[in-house]
Amino acid sequence: MTHTASADGRYDVLAAACPTRQVINRIGDRWSLLVLYALEGGTLRFQELRRAVDGISQKMLTQTLRLLERDGLVGREIYPTVPPRVEYSLTPMGRSLSGHIAAIREWAYANMAHIEDARSAFDTRV
Amino acid sequence: MTHTASADGRYDVLAAACPTRQVINRIGDRWSLLVLYALEGGTLRFQELRRAVDGISQKMLTQTLRLLERDGLVGREIYPTVPPRVEYSLTPMGRSLSGHIAAIREWAYANMAHIEDARSAFDTRV
Repeated sequence: MTHTASADGRYDVLAAACPTRQVINRIGDRWSLLVLYALEGGTLRFQELRRAVDGISQKMLTQTLRLLERDGLVGREIYPTVPPRVEYSLTPMGRSLSGHIAAIREWAYANMAHIEDARSAFDTRV
Repeated sequence: MTHTASADGRYDVLAAACPTRQVINRIGDRWSLLVLYALEGGTLRFQELRRAVDGISQKMLTQTLRLLERDGLVGREIYPTVPPRVEYSLTPMGRSLSGHIAAIREWAYANMAHIEDARSAFDTRV
């Protein structure tokens, strides 16, 4: 059991076959992170999400939403209007994850200047 | 300014041109996350890291370490032995990030069963 294993020894993200590795693969995907960030503020329609996540393509947003929905992190509500309205929001489980990933965003905001310094120093060395 | 912007309005990960987007791209990369997890336990040599992060290729580990080093998250120490010994460890900045990403791993361990239920439910619906 490595130091990264769960307390009960059942899970270890560092093991390729561990099911939690798939969760890390999902979170370790820039678009998933950004879609979860965008939904933190509340329910959004597809086109609103697309505008919110600057740079995401229609295809990538469709794929990302589908995977997040499959994992139970994002809910999809269809309203029988003409044309049908489709809305996306965080599920309770998605919301419970959202706080942790928001902490990473805040960390990035707080440390961006240090990261840029590190990059400049690295680039002059190499 | 969106709800995801930094308090001073300077940064917003949802904007494609924001420098913090690059940090999210780095964190939002499964191998970076896994390498940071592996280094949480302390200093490791390249081959130790490779064994620790089950499934990573030599090439991907080299690339990932280089990017993490460039961002100032991982330090690289070379000892003038024959052959030279190269050790990797979290920098203080890497360690400050490490706590937040460890929270995501713990979340995954705690929620894995719910995610698997969500997937089964989704797959029978689709």
